[in-house]
This record gives sequence, structure tokens and C-alpha cells, in this order.
Amino acid sequence: MRRKGLASMAAQAVEVTENASSVTLGPAAGLSCRECGERFPLGPIFACATCFGPLEVAYELPGGDPEALRKQIEAGPHNIWRYAPLLPVPADVAGKPNLNPGFTKLVKADNLARELGVTGGLYVKDDSGNPTHSFKDRVVAIAVEAARAFGFTTLSCSSTGNLAGAVGAAARRAGFRSCVFIPHDLEAGKVVMAAVYGGDLVGIEGNYDDVNRFCSELIGDPLGEGWGFVNVNLRPYYGEGSKTLAYEICEQLGWRLPDQIVIPVASGSQLTKIDKGLKELITLGLVEDRPYRIYGAQAEGCSPVSTAFKAGHDVVRPQKPDTIAKSLAIGNPADGPYVLDIARRTGGAVEDVNDEQVVDAIKLLARTEGIFAETAGGVTVGVTKKLIEAGLLDPTLSTVILNTGDGLKTLDAVAPTTGPTATIRPSLDAFRSAGLAG
Amino acid sequence: MRRKGLASMAAQAVEVTENASSVTLGPAAGLSCRECGERFPLGPIFACATCFGPLEVAYELPGGDPEALRKQIEAGPHNIWRYAPLLPVPADVAGKPNLNPGFTKLVKADNLARELGVTGGLYVKDDSGNPTHSFKDRVVAIAVEAARAFGFTTLSCSSTGNLAGAVGAAARRAGFRSCVFIPHDLEAGKVVMAAVYGGDLVGIEGNYDDVNRFCSELIGDPLGEGWGFVNVNLRPYYGEGSKTLAYEICEQLGWRLPDQIVIPVASGSQLTKIDKGLKELITLGLVEDRPYRIYGAQAEGCSPVSTAFKAGHDVVRPQKPDTIAKSLAIGNPADGPYVLDIARRTGGAVEDVNDEQVVDAIKLLARTEGIFAETAGGVTVGVTKKLIEAGLLDPTLSTVILNTGDGLKTLDAVAPTTGPTATIRPSLDAFRSAGLAG
Repeated sequence: MRRKGLASMAAQAVEVTENASSVTLGPAAGLSCRECGERFPLGPIFACATCFGPLEVAYELPGGDPEALRKQIEAGPHNIWRYAPLLPVPADVAGKPNLNPGFTKLVKADNLARELGVTGGLYVKDDSGNPTHSFKDRVVAIAVEAARAFGFTTLSCSSTGNLAGAVGAAARRAGFRSCVFIPHDLEAGKVVMAAVYGGDLVGIEGNYDDVNRFCSELIGDPLGEGWGFVNVNLRPYYGEGSKTLAYEICEQLGWRLPDQIVIPVASGSQLTKIDKGLKELITLGLVEDRPYRIYGAQAEGCSPVSTAFKAGHDVVRPQKPDTIAKSLAIGNPADGPYVLDIARRTGGAVEDVNDEQVVDAIKLLARTEGIFAETAGGVTVGVTKKLIEAGLLDPTLSTVILNTGDGLKTLDAVAPTTGPTATIRPSLDAFRSAGLAG
Repeated sequence: MRRKGLASMAAQAVEVTENASSVTLGPAAGLSCRECGERFPLGPIFACATCFGPLEVAYELPGGDPEALRKQIEAGPHNIWRYAPLLPVPADVAGKPNLNPGFTKLVKADNLARELGVTGGLYVKDDSGNPTHSFKDRVVAIAVEAARAFGFTTLSCSSTGNLAGAVGAAARRAGFRSCVFIPHDLEAGKVVMAAVYGGDLVGIEGNYDDVNRFCSELIGDPLGEGWGFVNVNLRPYYGEGSKTLAYEICEQLGWRLPDQIVIPVASGSQLTKIDKGLKELITLGLVEDRPYRIYGAQAEGCSPVSTAFKAGHDVVRPQKPDTIAKSLAIGNPADGPYVLDIARRTGGAVEDVNDEQVVDAIKLLARTEGIFAETAGGVTVGVTKKLIEAGLLDPTLSTVILNTGDGLKTLDAVAPTTGPTATIRPSLDAFRSAGLAG
């Protein structure tokens, strides 16, 4: 399946090259293959025509005075478009209809720092503040602008829930038709979140793999003409949205790099793009050039990358996911090898925690900072704790933990162990007996 | 019950007066009775010792050059503390641990405007972007600072769910103990949202009225010493948080008053405080002095204020609530008469919509702007539509609609009518037959 999809995409890549695209997306100079380096003009393609490697956006970033660029950014809107000079989007993007995600809170987490023994400054980058309450709004926002540039009329994706909502919401605001594909047996709540925006939502009789296979076929068929799949044929643009997390963290720290960042790993794309963003800021002179460490966080029940890291392997062996952290449950992560490279190059690590530790970490973050995280946030907080205990993360250095989603979307994870302290009759005597006064 | 609570509070008011409080809360000059005008020093009291009327914060607002004040605000943090000079909080509030809500998006809703026929500019103030995803974070944030000033160590409230979560989250972040009271038979999801922050959560065997009665008893008892109930003995401060909605709307419009605002009415406090905030901006010269119209929105199943408005009455007759808009289900709204005054004085109106219209309006907002609103947001959008159709809201004027909460918290309202467009086998033929291509 994957082979067929790639071959079909590679054929499109050749076609795009021959037609010499005239699309302009800000500083994006083209696409380049992450494996062999071959360049392609901007287009709705994601696989290299030569080696089938993944394509990513290559830039001609603004040169000149860093101070002037910094001022330009600071004068921009309070969303990701303040970084438009560094993103594959038109210069006038802020005026187009879009959900305008980003510039979420970087919370100085002093209470959590005390619990974890971090003395160098601990921060939580809380992406639950985005329009549909996950970091997906960032990546979808960039994909929307690419879809507009390429003349697509329908936005689509395969999803197990969160992405479906992000695409549905963004499409309606931006004036696209949307048609999103999900496994037919998703939980009722997730179906509602995906369907409420009113675009077409199609349940596929099969599992998530079946949904993906179907989408690959649709892209290669005339039926899919005019369709932008945010996480397939728009993936090179989509992925760049995660760079904005790096930009925001540094700007919110006063244009400084953090010493350490802990990032959840699903496909691994987010982690690699945050690293890309940090390197860009250094190249542009917007932050000092000094070392930083990147840590990857997985759930034990889906830990192909941390398993490879700890075994010292370069190859990531696929796993069959079985974890409550469903938004991280990608058993065969496309960017796994890149994650291993980055963790090793920067002196970081990749670690995992089990489901019980995920739940404990969700509650730890909630009771220290009042932030109710999705299971993925429990994974990053739990892994941070574990890394400190193992001596792999230095508590005397400044550390940023990512919370990429919202606990309201994964209530089931904490429900069995979260309830009232007491249930009493409405009387002062009953309250006194419960021992809760004072 | 209420009488006993009020008498107890009034006794405390006398005590506070006699002890001549030395608490300083920014520009707050004291408390004043909204009925008889009697003044009291700042303290944890809410009822007038003379007439039992509700107390509110009286200010000595900053005089001088409006331009200087505007610049000071614009240079402030991107949350409600940018308005600290106009709020009952210490001048150094931004440095204290707090959830820092506010400065949520004011979305220019062009798609919705087209559907509703609004030509004068339509905006949605989307308070689902707050830390716990409702406007309650604003009011609780102010109550937290008052609790700190008065030396309380426990934060508390009675709640049917949303407020419980907002208090639990804010308390932990700010370093308070929390103990929150809910009816024992709340839906499981709401209990999880309230309990996850780890403070004490007490289920009371009874309905919401029983919970309130119990809390009133607790305030008057030594058991409740050191307890700040955000919506009882801290209510005068708590309520002021809603003023920030008025400030933000005007600032985000470029320091201009909107012509019309549509606001949900539960107790009516939010609407009266938004009016207070608008009047303050005019007095301070931060916006032009010109007329604006304020509209109140209720659900038909709990419409004591709109019923009184339409009947031309000054008195609000209590109702027994029966509506899916549970966050607005206050049958005996304390500020009802003030809402009537304001709607009539400004040339607005108070209207209601039925549950089916609420659901339709939630979906309308979602499919036009990608905003998934709580039922209360469905009420404001639905009432806006109804008012335009009735000729009571002028579509040629600029209009702001409030969305005060998040659809993720009221999934049940839309679930029965929200689902996939189609369910198909994973094949192109099946997709073609479903008629969704193109």
C-alpha cells in the first residue's frame, strides 16, 4: 500500500517539476528530499521522485540585521503569523481567514519544579490554549495556506479524532469544503468533536490502517482531484507548523534557548521540526548559538523510538500500540530515525512511561499548576520525572515540557481514579465528621 | 435560608466596618451598596448591613491623560492583568501565581455575518480560550487575589461543574487549599473535571439548592473560618472579573465601543459588569462617549428575565429551570432587575430561544467559524438570529456576540444530532457510490 502511494506521489513530483510551479509561499524556496537532498519546486507532493525519501520545505530565510527581524516579529499578531517571515505561507497570511492558532502560554511552573526538584527554571508550553485545544491547529493552519496556494477546494485527512476536529474547524473558517475519514468505530465523543463543524465525515469500515490505505488510493485517483490531505500530500507544509513551538518558546524566554526540552513522540515529526526551528533561530542570530538538549517522550505501550534509543539501535522496529496515550499511538513512526539522531546529537535521550505513570503525571501537573493535560502531556511530564530520577535530565538547567493537548478530550484516562473526597449529607455535623475543615 | 445567610453576612459587614480594614486592592476604594449606596471598607462581605442589598466594588479610577493610560495598558501582559489599574487587585498582581486568564480572541465572524445578514461587522468574543475554557477563569482570578489580600487559606464555591474546575485549577496554581461543593449526582465527566486538580471535592446529598444552603451555613460557622467562597463572601470582587470582557472587546476593536453586544444571562452579573466596564472606559476617555445597546440572551427553559422584559415588568418572577443550557439555569437571577434596567436604558432587549434553536446555533457557529461553543454560546448566537429576524437588533451596526464556554464540556447537547455523513467500506467504489467526491 505504502509503496503504491509513494510511487503515485513520486510520479506527481515529476509532473510538478516539469510544470515548474509558479506558487509563492513566503521564504519557501522549494522542497528538498531529507534522504538524498534532491530539490523540487513547491507542490502538493511529499515523496522524492528519485529515492522515495520524505520531502521537506527548504527556505531562503531573511538575512540582515537580527534586531530588525526580532522587532518585526514582536510587532506582529499574537499568533503563529508573527513568524510568517520564517514559514511557508504568503506574506499577507495574517489577513486571510484562518483559525490563527499559537502564541499559547509558556507557564513558569514553580510548583511543579519544587515537586520534581528542578532548580534551573521549569516551564510548561501549554498548547491546550489553541482554538481546538491541541497543537494540531498549528500544523493544520499552515496546510490550509498551502491548500489555498495550490488551488485545492477540499481539505481532508485520515484521523482517529483530534486531527479530524482541527481540520473540520479550520476548513470551515477558511472557506474550504472538508471531507475527513475516520475508523467507523471511534468513541461517540470523538465522533461528535469531528462532526460538529459540519463538513463531511466518513466512517470507514476497518481500522486506522484501512483508513490510511483508502486515503492513499483516493489521492492517486481522479476522485481525489482538488483534494488536499493535510497529513499526506500537504505533509511537507503541515509539518512546518511545529517549528512555531520552537520560535514561541525562545521568544517567550526573552529570545533565549532553553537548555532542555521534553517533547512527545508520535510520528516524531514535531520533535524534528522543533529542532529545525531552534537551528533556524541560531542561524538568523535571533538567539545565542549554544548547546541545547532535546528529549523524546513515549508511552511504554507504544515505544518503538525509546526502545531503539535505549538499545543503541539506529533502526526503529515497529510495535503494535497498546496505551491510553492514543494520540501518540503510532507504532511505525516515520521520523523515528531522525528523532534518534537528534536526541543523540544534542545529548538528550528518549524515554517512556507506563499508563499508570501517565495518569499520575496528568494529576501531578493538574494539582501543581492547574493545567489539565491530555494523555500526551502526562507522557512528557512523566518522562521528565523519570529522566531526572535517572540522572539523564539535569535539574539545575532550564527545562521546557510540552503539553500538546487537552485533558477534556481524554477524560477516560483519569476517570477511574478521580472522584470526590467525600460525599455527605448537607449538614455542618456531617462536614465536621468528614474531617475536611480547617 | 437566604435571609439567615444575609443576616450573618450583614453582621460581618458591621464588624469589618468597625475594624476599619487596612487591605489595599489597587483602585478599589471600598464597597458600596447597589440599593442604598451605603459604603463599607474592603472586606469579605457581600450584603449591605443596612438594607441587605448586594455590595459592589467602588473605585477611585486613575485620572489624567487617557493616552498615557492606554499606552500603559497596551504595554501590559496579554491577559486580564493589563487592566490592573481598573481592577480590585494589587498593582503587582502580574507577578503573583495565578492562571492569568483573558485576552481571548475577538474573532471577526464574516462567514456567520453572511448567514445572519449582518453588514455592520460581526464579532465573536471567544472565551473558550481561557485556561479552563470558560469565562469563569476571569472572575475566579480576581477572587483569588481578594482571598490572598484577606488572608484566606482555603478557596471554595458551590458549583454544578464549570466553576468547580475553575476554582480547583486556580487554587492549586495560586497556592491555596481548595474545597469545593457539588451535588452528589453530577454527571461523571463533570466530576472528573472538578476533581482532577486534586483539591477536596465534596458531594452533597441533595440538589444545587441544598449545596448553596449548606455553604451559607458554613460561612456563618467557625468551621468555615479562613474560607473564601468565590461566589459568596468574595462575590463583589469575583463579579468584577467580567468587566475585563468589556475592556478587551473595546481594545480589540481599536479602542472603540461596539454598537451592540449580545450577552448570556444566568444570574445577570456578567451583563451588568460588562455595562459597568463600558461606562468606565467612557468616563476615562479611553473610548468615545456614544450610545451602545446591550442585549441579554436566555434559554426558553429558564427565561425569567426575558419573560419579564417582554411583559414590560420590572420584577423578575423565579422559574424552575428545564433547559440543556445548564450553565445558564438560574431560575431566580440575583441581577435580573439590573439586566432589565440596562437593556431598556440602552435600547437593547432580552430574548430567549428553545433547546432546538440552541443546538442549531451551536452548529451554525461551528460550521461558519470553526468555533465549537458551549450551550451558553448557542443561546447567544440563537438569540442574535432571532433578534435580527424580529427587527430588534440592527444588522447594519457593529455587533459582538459572547461565547463564554466550550463545546467539549457540553457534548451531550449536540451528540444526538451530530454524526458521520456516511459509513462505507474502504474502497473507491463505495466512496463513489456515497456521492461525496468533487
